[in-house]
Amino acid sequence: MLDSVDVGPRSLDAYTQLIGEQGVAEIRELAEPFKGARIAHINASTYGAGVCELLRSIVPLYRGLGIQADWKLISADPEFFSVTKAFRNALQGAPYELTQDARETYLMYNSRNGELLKEEEYDFIIVHDPQTAAIRHFRGPDGTKWIWRCHIDTSEPNEAVLEFMLPFLAEYDALVFTMDAFVPAALRHQRVVTMTPAIDPLSPKNMGLSGAICQEILAWRGINPRKPLITQASRFDPWKDPLGVIEAYRLVRSEVPGLQLALIGSMASDDREVWEMYSRIVAEIKGDDDIHVLTNLIGVGDMDVSAFQTSSDVVIQKSIREGFGLGVSETMWKGTPVVANRSGGIPLQMEGDVGGFLVDDTEECARRVFFLLSNRDEARRRGLAGRERVRQRFLITRLLADELRLLASLASARGTLAPSASAIPG
Amino acid sequence: MLDSVDVGPRSLDAYTQLIGEQGVAEIRELAEPFKGARIAHINASTYGAGVCELLRSIVPLYRGLGIQADWKLISADPEFFSVTKAFRNALQGAPYELTQDARETYLMYNSRNGELLKEEEYDFIIVHDPQTAAIRHFRGPDGTKWIWRCHIDTSEPNEAVLEFMLPFLAEYDALVFTMDAFVPAALRHQRVVTMTPAIDPLSPKNMGLSGAICQEILAWRGINPRKPLITQASRFDPWKDPLGVIEAYRLVRSEVPGLQLALIGSMASDDREVWEMYSRIVAEIKGDDDIHVLTNLIGVGDMDVSAFQTSSDVVIQKSIREGFGLGVSETMWKGTPVVANRSGGIPLQMEGDVGGFLVDDTEECARRVFFLLSNRDEARRRGLAGRERVRQRFLITRLLADELRLLASLASARGTLAPSASAIPG
Repeated sequence: MLDSVDVGPRSLDAYTQLIGEQGVAEIRELAEPFKGARIAHINASTYGAGVCELLRSIVPLYRGLGIQADWKLISADPEFFSVTKAFRNALQGAPYELTQDARETYLMYNSRNGELLKEEEYDFIIVHDPQTAAIRHFRGPDGTKWIWRCHIDTSEPNEAVLEFMLPFLAEYDALVFTMDAFVPAALRHQRVVTMTPAIDPLSPKNMGLSGAICQEILAWRGINPRKPLITQASRFDPWKDPLGVIEAYRLVRSEVPGLQLALIGSMASDDREVWEMYSRIVAEIKGDDDIHVLTNLIGVGDMDVSAFQTSSDVVIQKSIREGFGLGVSETMWKGTPVVANRSGGIPLQMEGDVGGFLVDDTEECARRVFFLLSNRDEARRRGLAGRERVRQRFLITRLLADELRLLASLASARGTLAPSASAIPG
Repeated sequence: MLDSVDVGPRSLDAYTQLIGEQGVAEIRELAEPFKGARIAHINASTYGAGVCELLRSIVPLYRGLGIQADWKLISADPEFFSVTKAFRNALQGAPYELTQDARETYLMYNSRNGELLKEEEYDFIIVHDPQTAAIRHFRGPDGTKWIWRCHIDTSEPNEAVLEFMLPFLAEYDALVFTMDAFVPAALRHQRVVTMTPAIDPLSPKNMGLSGAICQEILAWRGINPRKPLITQASRFDPWKDPLGVIEAYRLVRSEVPGLQLALIGSMASDDREVWEMYSRIVAEIKGDDDIHVLTNLIGVGDMDVSAFQTSSDVVIQKSIREGFGLGVSETMWKGTPVVANRSGGIPLQMEGDVGGFLVDDTEECARRVFFLLSNRDEARRRGLAGRERVRQRFLITRLLADELRLLASLASARGTLAPSASAIPG
């Protein structure tokens, strides 16, 4: 048996105030046919990636709807995770030489976990990301409907790795990508679906803290409440361009004396790159007392992030490359204007500059931040429009409904297709 | 110059509601003679230890009182930190073979940082913990008053390491320990002072969240609000005995079906021991859905810890060995009853079983937890008494007053003692 992550059940009732009684009723209706159905979400870790946050929110909601949903974890050794980390980067376009050793490691652990899965029966299994994509192959034939959910940008994948993965993907009943642009051109499959990820408005990161509490938190963390503040809350890695944020900030500060910058990042335990970037940031800001670097090492957690997203004048998301960039929706949900780089899923969230401004470089970033700091009414208006955009498109309840509709479409095809025979070359 | 940690100023006014106008006025009076004085707190890191939390709270308060207070960091390479980590453990009683190499590494970095400090002038320098104790020696003679503040339990130190440190300690004007019991018997010094550490009631960890918010946070983290909950929030290391907590919990659960346990720990980035303990905990609770393991890896920060301390029915602190164990005061401050092992500074905080129960072993721990779960009025009464105890003795304002009094006593002796000559043997 695979390990389970217990996350308890959670009633949809709590979301009524946000999506209305009709919204809740619609989801209940979509879930009705699946009462008692057995569904597993399978991924590789309980922490560290956006997918974990999603599962932590959505699996309890399935359960609250009377569906027997499990969150299952594969088990593997570090050698497997170094291979899959490389695969992941390669599928996102990083140069990579696929070796026979890497293939074998990947297959060995997927095979082992597929074996473990044979002891369990599910009506639907949703497998997340490349790490576990071959598990369906090794699980063997069954009555289960299989979905592979890809959370990364595979628009320009390393060809060798994609080719290696394609036969495994072909065995799924459906493949889900975050957006059309992320679907690899070489992929041929009878059922490719897109669903954007979403934020949970009731999670500690998004639940809505009072302005007074937010101000207290910021003050205690060293922010002067009488001076303007801009923030980027994002991993300290080169793709999020924290050094570019500092550069943009300094450009703006030359026009807005006293402007403060908060850089908030979570330090992964074992990620050398993140530590290197942290050191570079610390060196870069040495002696610059208006820049504040905040991490989980000093107890900064989801709720502090929320307070900064809520109480900053502008939030920046300067990612050079981005999966979906859910931090943008998190911030828009708080009604705070965002200036974000046009990368990954960000333009989709802020289409039409709703919620702030999309930009293409550091100078434009600085110019837009300055504009929002100087035009408070416009900033407020854009912030509120951003919140409404998120309410309509990027809440977890929308994602839940999308998933239930996909399950329904697969269930109606139940038994009519032998999954592994159904991969119709395009 | 040594690096500075910028933490901003902070007014004492915010504490009026907690310690009264008289309390605030007293501190202002103590601070009056030091307006404009230059004070440095020096330690080795901005994160990871209780001393960092203290400095993050108290340095801004100094500044708010018109004192020119700095928080300064020594700089050193990893080889230094492995030596000082070993020193620290040795001074707390761990077996250790002091080598010539270790001495030299220690002295080389203290010398280098002492040199850096020569460029700066202070009236008072407070040096924290063994890492930096020799910095005073290498800084050389000056008009500064020097205080060494020891935050660890040095009651049974490794003799070789203590002997190596003693000449450096002798050069200080005052030595501060957490409690009398922690002062090494071999230490002879003309001025040894004790001060307990304290909590900041306005920090994100202690600021007081509404019951409704706490319940929402717990529910989202998977806690069932209709079932009782006990929590330990403490490093995952053997000295905090998390496996003993699980054992105690299971004893209680045999009497209280449905009882839930939350184990909350912060994962240090590079601490192998913590990761090993985390794995042991995860293995131990496998399949036990009523036990929840929560870490900073999933965004759990100070405010979530606060929510759990506030909304748990009982909080456990089962430390086998403890410095002061400030988590106990944090919990008592929330009015939640504590069952804690009689170790380190814990008996001092809960003297007379105020705030809960002091215990000596797992079985007694379980018995007391069961008692508190079964006697809600008594539990509430003890919880409230705990809060009052903290208000009187363990708030940061009391510590600030203690420090100011110590500065006053040293200032009045200014110039009359050549510090290094004043270490009176025996």
